[in-house]
Amino acid sequence: MLYHTQQEAAKNGFITRQMREAAQYEGIDAKILMDMVACGNAVIPANKNHKNLLPKAIGEKLKTKINVNIGISKDSSNQNEELKKAHLAIELGADAIMDLSTSGNTRAFRKALVDTTALLGSVPIYDALVFYKKSLKDINAKEWLDVVKMHAQDGIDFITIHAGLNRQTVQRFKNNKNRITNIVSRGGSLIFAWMEMTGNENPFFEYFDELLEICREYDVTLSLGDACRPGSINDASDACQIEELITLGELTKRAWAKDVQVIVEGPGHMPLNQIETNMKIQKSLCHGAPFYVLGPLVTDIAPGYDHITSAIGGALAAWHGAAFLCYVTPAEHLRLPNAEDMKDGIIASKIAAHAADIAKGVPNVIQWDNQMSEARQKVDWKSMFSIAIDPEKAKRYREESKPEHEDTCSMCGEFCSMRNMNKILNGENVNII
Amino acid sequence: MLYHTQQEAAKNGFITRQMREAAQYEGIDAKILMDMVACGNAVIPANKNHKNLLPKAIGEKLKTKINVNIGISKDSSNQNEELKKAHLAIELGADAIMDLSTSGNTRAFRKALVDTTALLGSVPIYDALVFYKKSLKDINAKEWLDVVKMHAQDGIDFITIHAGLNRQTVQRFKNNKNRITNIVSRGGSLIFAWMEMTGNENPFFEYFDELLEICREYDVTLSLGDACRPGSINDASDACQIEELITLGELTKRAWAKDVQVIVEGPGHMPLNQIETNMKIQKSLCHGAPFYVLGPLVTDIAPGYDHITSAIGGALAAWHGAAFLCYVTPAEHLRLPNAEDMKDGIIASKIAAHAADIAKGVPNVIQWDNQMSEARQKVDWKSMFSIAIDPEKAKRYREESKPEHEDTCSMCGEFCSMRNMNKILNGENVNII
Repeated sequence: MLYHTQQEAAKNGFITRQMREAAQYEGIDAKILMDMVACGNAVIPANKNHKNLLPKAIGEKLKTKINVNIGISKDSSNQNEELKKAHLAIELGADAIMDLSTSGNTRAFRKALVDTTALLGSVPIYDALVFYKKSLKDINAKEWLDVVKMHAQDGIDFITIHAGLNRQTVQRFKNNKNRITNIVSRGGSLIFAWMEMTGNENPFFEYFDELLEICREYDVTLSLGDACRPGSINDASDACQIEELITLGELTKRAWAKDVQVIVEGPGHMPLNQIETNMKIQKSLCHGAPFYVLGPLVTDIAPGYDHITSAIGGALAAWHGAAFLCYVTPAEHLRLPNAEDMKDGIIASKIAAHAADIAKGVPNVIQWDNQMSEARQKVDWKSMFSIAIDPEKAKRYREESKPEHEDTCSMCGEFCSMRNMNKILNGENVNII
Repeated sequence: MLYHTQQEAAKNGFITRQMREAAQYEGIDAKILMDMVACGNAVIPANKNHKNLLPKAIGEKLKTKINVNIGISKDSSNQNEELKKAHLAIELGADAIMDLSTSGNTRAFRKALVDTTALLGSVPIYDALVFYKKSLKDINAKEWLDVVKMHAQDGIDFITIHAGLNRQTVQRFKNNKNRITNIVSRGGSLIFAWMEMTGNENPFFEYFDELLEICREYDVTLSLGDACRPGSINDASDACQIEELITLGELTKRAWAKDVQVIVEGPGHMPLNQIETNMKIQKSLCHGAPFYVLGPLVTDIAPGYDHITSAIGGALAAWHGAAFLCYVTPAEHLRLPNAEDMKDGIIASKIAAHAADIAKGVPNVIQWDNQMSEARQKVDWKSMFSIAIDPEKAKRYREESKPEHEDTCSMCGEFCSMRNMNKILNGENVNII
């Protein structure tokens, strides 16, 4: 059939090639995935102009996906370096790449990215500032939308649009004096500044229907940005955040009415004990649209280790319903990540995603763990290395400190429980000293 | 008053110096802590012969404490190096140090450790093998207990004793064919091997009253080891683990009857969705005795990153009731940790503990986060560094990549939301390009 978007096809009972391929990756029936896409519980971000895409679906009941941010900027302007990072990220297991470029020849870079297989995302308003080369306040509503259209034409699969920060939420933000860190979303703060400087309504809220037309034409998935996501433990789950989420839920319904696929973005910084509730309130307010979280970081005190603070929060979030985790690197809050930071961020994020998938019972994911445990029980180092999430690091660590006995490691030596249990269960004596 | 143990004093309504000092550290009233110690919900491991101890209490309602393992072994025999690591660990925030030495002059090392201020733990059965220099199976019950007595005399504050692995649990373990990784507790596997080779009952179970006499005399806190803690996601929460926990709960009551303080040890490897239940069943079966967990590691697939897999599980465990986290380093499952691994392990563990303390509402801990958030809002780099959990790393990261503008970082540059929100809320224009 002819269709505009994956959701339109799904609503008409048509299984697209993308649904088949994405379902195969999940190990589920394509019909089941089609039903999820039809009702909005899953999305397949697949711009018609992204020819090299390896389609993957994002949804609560599917494997948790992870996103990696890259981009050229004034402080990191080498396009080839960033492109190399994108390829490395995909090799390391990134499902999606978001291009957050803020300087340079952003269009050329974006087009180079479209040659990759990952789900590609962008934040068009960053690019508008580069593209128009004029003051923020002088960009008009039509121009904002034109940049969205350019990204759609260029083949971007999902775009972050901060359409929920309308005048009413801005008022609530201003009345709310409890926040320590104000608006920490980059795009959100730009829209806020634009609204303050021009006195206008948020252009993406005001012209949401026009935005949907663009998304529908190219099948661009809307990633509804949360301008008011909390940037500190203190600010989590406050009135601004929840009011914006209500609006995002309303916009979700409007998008679905035009068959536009939707992801909703979420926190942020958040204490452990608020995460489950946040996932549930998002599901309820946003009618089951997939939740895309940045973190949550469960404490503010650990710059240099925010891949860990976010792995803790991300694991919990994904277990309780988030479908898509934006990676966070050790460089968060400090500087642009280098390739090593990126690797640390990806692995921490994949650990969180996998731990959540085990907990929510995604079929077959636990086999990975069982294979590792079987290799451990046999003290089979070669298999342990090949199964490990990072074979190189595991191997390097062991080789840095070889033990006296090959069937142990230097941590426990002869006290190795695996070795001793194998001996005693085998009828042999265990003798240590 | 004259008393044998902190618990005895507490039961008699006597506030000891240790209770006062530990309560001051918590910022709570000493009487409240005394009540917790009296009923066993908190312990103050404070051997009468550990003169330099800085007393701290361990309990569900208190700040979550962390332990660092060190020790001399065949593969790391330099006593001074290990001692330096112990001092570094304390500087980095370790509340407790467990000496897991398995080779060399362990007594001299232990006595050197007793000069430090940390809560000191040990596993006497490792040392028995070094001390007697004879075959495991030839050590008799009296000899096992004599080594415990030596550790008590030397000033060790808490000792891990695997008293719960009795013949009945061994039988259950043998009947249970579902485990992939058998018994992974080092001490547990040694006791199991000894029981199999000698045909005897577990000496610590059989002579538990004699053990209690030693603990009572020196006020050594019993850390009841879980020989059957799961060593893989597959093995978590099985019959062996829970049956042993039932026994540990019974032993806890017997210890309390003699005023001996008790901690109960716990998992291990465990999927996210079983952690809360495990914490609750421990509280119920062990009558509220503090829970000391090793991990839990929420997936098996990440050797080289088990400080992260355990930070995820540890945060959840501590939030839901665990009082004491044993650190895990990136070297876990691969080799002995070096000083850098130790630092990574301690920081990951402290992040987990702090995140849990925020979530469970330990008074005042959130102030640390708020200070950081205030510094971030002001883009005050100097304060951010001094507040950070690892000032050196935070500073180094930023300095590796200086941004164009001092009031930003190279991550966002002019797009910095903190900077732009401060400007616009201050009535200034935001201008980017």
